[in-house]
Amino acid sequence: MVLVGSGPGAIDLITLRGFDLISKADFIVHDRLVSPKLLDGVKPSAILINVGKGPEKDRYKQSEINEELIRLATDTHNEYRVFPGAIIVRLKGGDPFVYGLGGDEVLALKQHGISCQVVPGISSALAVPATVGIPLTHKGVATSFTVLTGHIPPGQTGGADWDNLPRTLSTLVILMGVKHLQVICGHLVDQGWNAHTDVAIVESGTTDAQRVALSTLGQIGEIADKVKSPAIIVVGEVCTVLGLPVENSDEISSNEVWGVARSPV
Amino acid sequence: MVLVGSGPGAIDLITLRGFDLISKADFIVHDRLVSPKLLDGVKPSAILINVGKGPEKDRYKQSEINEELIRLATDTHNEYRVFPGAIIVRLKGGDPFVYGLGGDEVLALKQHGISCQVVPGISSALAVPATVGIPLTHKGVATSFTVLTGHIPPGQTGGADWDNLPRTLSTLVILMGVKHLQVICGHLVDQGWNAHTDVAIVESGTTDAQRVALSTLGQIGEIADKVKSPAIIVVGEVCTVLGLPVENSDEISSNEVWGVARSPV
Repeated sequence: MVLVGSGPGAIDLITLRGFDLISKADFIVHDRLVSPKLLDGVKPSAILINVGKGPEKDRYKQSEINEELIRLATDTHNEYRVFPGAIIVRLKGGDPFVYGLGGDEVLALKQHGISCQVVPGISSALAVPATVGIPLTHKGVATSFTVLTGHIPPGQTGGADWDNLPRTLSTLVILMGVKHLQVICGHLVDQGWNAHTDVAIVESGTTDAQRVALSTLGQIGEIADKVKSPAIIVVGEVCTVLGLPVENSDEISSNEVWGVARSPV
Repeated sequence: MVLVGSGPGAIDLITLRGFDLISKADFIVHDRLVSPKLLDGVKPSAILINVGKGPEKDRYKQSEINEELIRLATDTHNEYRVFPGAIIVRLKGGDPFVYGLGGDEVLALKQHGISCQVVPGISSALAVPATVGIPLTHKGVATSFTVLTGHIPPGQTGGADWDNLPRTLSTLVILMGVKHLQVICGHLVDQGWNAHTDVAIVESGTTDAQRVALSTLGQIGEIADKVKSPAIIVVGEVCTVLGLPVENSDEISSNEVWGVARSPV
């Protein structure tokens, strides 16, 4: 079995290796993909198994996905008619090992003696900032970056190590942070971050619905309730180092920039 | 102009979009690439400009590369015979915005009124751990990761924020850290990291010369002087969560695992 990362959304941001495997696959177990068109190129005989979670109800729990993969790879009852040499692809959004639960699937397979390989993909945590013109590192501005999730806010157990985040020459990329955006930004200021530190928010990155906003840690309260998931939050001076180019400039005010981001100009 | 990330090394880990641009490009300004074969597919009429740095001397400084890009894009003296509509690709290793100095090039171009776009690539900081079987995040083990450089060690100015790195549910990926490996690991222990924390070292990741070693923060001194650049250093319990599969198991001892890493099994 091969775990393939499909990349951040746009169909042509998958790797050549990943695309080649999709076109050769006999069985593809896929999530609810950002680009369903990725599956247009499969063989006519390929069997597609959708384990994606729907918008309203979870169709599959992770444990059920693992079981499905194991059933497919072993196929002891000949349920799927898996033949010797069949290519089985587990296609996942982004990168399988960056918030993809790919490790969970590899472990479950391994426990059943099933070998698998991993084809990396471009994580949206990196691609989305890049495509709107935010470099995660930049000479003299940021020499490190931290990617973390914000679904558990500061002050609650089980979340990120909010009190120990690099502050100097550093960038934060926060996923799943929309709900607690204001609490997170306030906590960073309490921890000694400059309230003027830039915060960029990219909603629905790399899709047609992409919108971008620019604010600061101290002023985020003015826009926090207008941000819609899914969004990627970038904290750090890299947000503005290339002049974050945004269309619809009529909408720009001092602390509120909503618009469609273009590539750097 | 388009800045294209070529990915971590293997030719088929570039994106479809990046590969398509290489095949259509009229001019390609490239670094010393991990996979020179990437250039096999260029048009016969394409003009290749190598600004890569040789192993012994720097052929181009970054400022000279910027100047070369500006000269090419403007071509006021018709030196390059750039025609209207020509596709100019700046091909860079990994991802242009992750230690690629892509932002520096975008800024220089922008200052001369030259627009450019960015096609992300897979950074070796993420791909190399993945291909040896180390997920940067894993449920219950790591929910965040920090990518930083180790060329300036703890205690010297200008380097990473070594005293403020996430410790719980966290992974560190250290690039350019071979020279100061022992100092870095010692500093982390001084900062309160458990001395038993796993450290994985991947030399020449994704190439035929790839080797992998497994140690801990406290025991790194036993192998530190055997590590050769370039290597990627991963710190955290994710190193062993999938059982880091290594061939040449004859060489394995309690604190020293050198071998050729395979994909997860």
